[in-house]
Amino acid sequence: MRLGEVVGTVVASTKVPGLEGIRLLIVQPIDATGKAAGGAVVAADAIHQAGVGERVYFVASREAAVALPNSFVPVDHAILGIVDQIHLDPTAKDAP
Amino acid sequence: MRLGEVVGTVVASTKVPGLEGIRLLIVQPIDATGKAAGGAVVAADAIHQAGVGERVYFVASREAAVALPNSFVPVDHAILGIVDQIHLDPTAKDAP
Amino acid sequence: MRLGEVVGTVVASTKVPGLEGIRLLIVQPIDATGKAAGGAVVAADAIHQAGVGERVYFVASREAAVALPNSFVPVDHAILGIVDQIHLDPTAKDAP
Amino acid sequence: MRLGEVVGTVVASTKVPGLEGIRLLIVQPIDATGKAAGGAVVAADAIHQAGVGERVYFVASREAAVALPNSFVPVDHAILGIVDQIHLDPTAKDAP
Amino acid sequence: MRLGEVVGTVVASTKVPGLEGIRLLIVQPIDATGKAAGGAVVAADAIHQAGVGERVYFVASREAAVALPNSFVPVDHAILGIVDQIHLDPTAKDAP
Repeated sequence: MRLGEVVGTVVASTKVPGLEGIRLLIVQPIDATGKAAGGAVVAADAIHQAGVGERVYFVASREAAVALPNSFVPVDHAILGIVDQIHLDPTAKDAP
Repeated sequence: MRLGEVVGTVVASTKVPGLEGIRLLIVQPIDATGKAAGGAVVAADAIHQAGVGERVYFVASREAAVALPNSFVPVDHAILGIVDQIHLDPTAKDAP
Repeated sequence: MRLGEVVGTVVASTKVPGLEGIRLLIVQPIDATGKAAGGAVVAADAIHQAGVGERVYFVASREAAVALPNSFVPVDHAILGIVDQIHLDPTAKDAP
Repeated sequence: MRLGEVVGTVVASTKVPGLEGIRLLIVQPIDATGKAAGGAVVAADAIHQAGVGERVYFVASREAAVALPNSFVPVDHAILGIVDQIHLDPTAKDAP
Repeated sequence: MRLGEVVGTVVASTKVPGLEGIRLLIVQPIDATGKAAGGAVVAADAIHQAGVGERVYFVASREAAVALPNSFVPVDHAILGIVDQIHLDPTAKDAP
């Protein structure tokens, strides 16, 4: 999974069957210190409550669809949860 | 999913069974502000109406085939919908 | 899918069961204008006729095995077809 | 699989069903010589004992869920084991 | 698939169930001319005979597990065969 911040929403009236009712959010991946890392993705909101500005963690690839009520949908990024806190150990050799 | 713009089409007469009748479009991935981001891909048009110049969102990996009527096809990128609007929150810390 | 050019072949006598009789070709990914883009991959020739120097499109990840007669093989890149023509729309904002 | 070092933990009270009781750790991918390589990921701890500062190897994509007791969960990175030692052959042409 | 050179081995006593008896090798991906390309990965040795210093080709993602006797294991990189020879066509436009 990756850490990210919700930065926007997508409106799309024309879509394939199976995506009706799924909120699509624009998520900017971030690193463990909160810095943007890589390009934004469009993720399905599997928790139905992620809001713009919130820190989330999301899953990519085949596993994203598993997070949704109907898993047989063409979805490859899904928000799994809201991040309350991140604890980093500054003594770890590769700590960011 | 990623955002992209349809920039061209592919003509391929020799192909594996299962791909007959599937339109193949060249899609340039873009970021949330509309700037090109990464290399172009060849995507199946799962909505049967994506046109050159249109903004779309597309799915990659295993989930792409799920967007097509017959899911047992070797397709790893599919256009899922046409983007009408993108709302970005300028107050988000990592907004592009 | 990605566009590519067949640039070589691989000879491998020691291999896992299931790969016998599958031609392995070295494919250089290219962008829509024909320029090399990223590192070469080893792809199974699912159309049985891709030749060195030809432009092809290939599929990656789980879907590659679906292109082969026996889909339960450890193959993650497969050539799906030979590209006859690419039409790019120069008026597309993100056209290459 | 990739080598990594556990550098932190994630606390997330709001999450999708199926992730209860799964420890989420922040893992910094490293190369064979121990240098950080690429961005940190959030991985499920499939061995239930990976601690901050430890060297681990982890799996990505669909196979990550297979490492967990319930494989039908939306997890795309999982820690598989703790690395005791790495032996590198300095005579290998491409040894790091 | 990708080309690679085996450059080391991993010793890991703590591991998830299903990985017992699977040799884990450190593989440096290389391009078609033999130059290192990208970061090293940890791959399962599906041919039971890949040695340090040998050129191999390996598969990534979901398909890696298919190369092993028990496919329901959390493995995302597997060595499929030893490369005897690579033939590159110097006349190919994108030949490396």
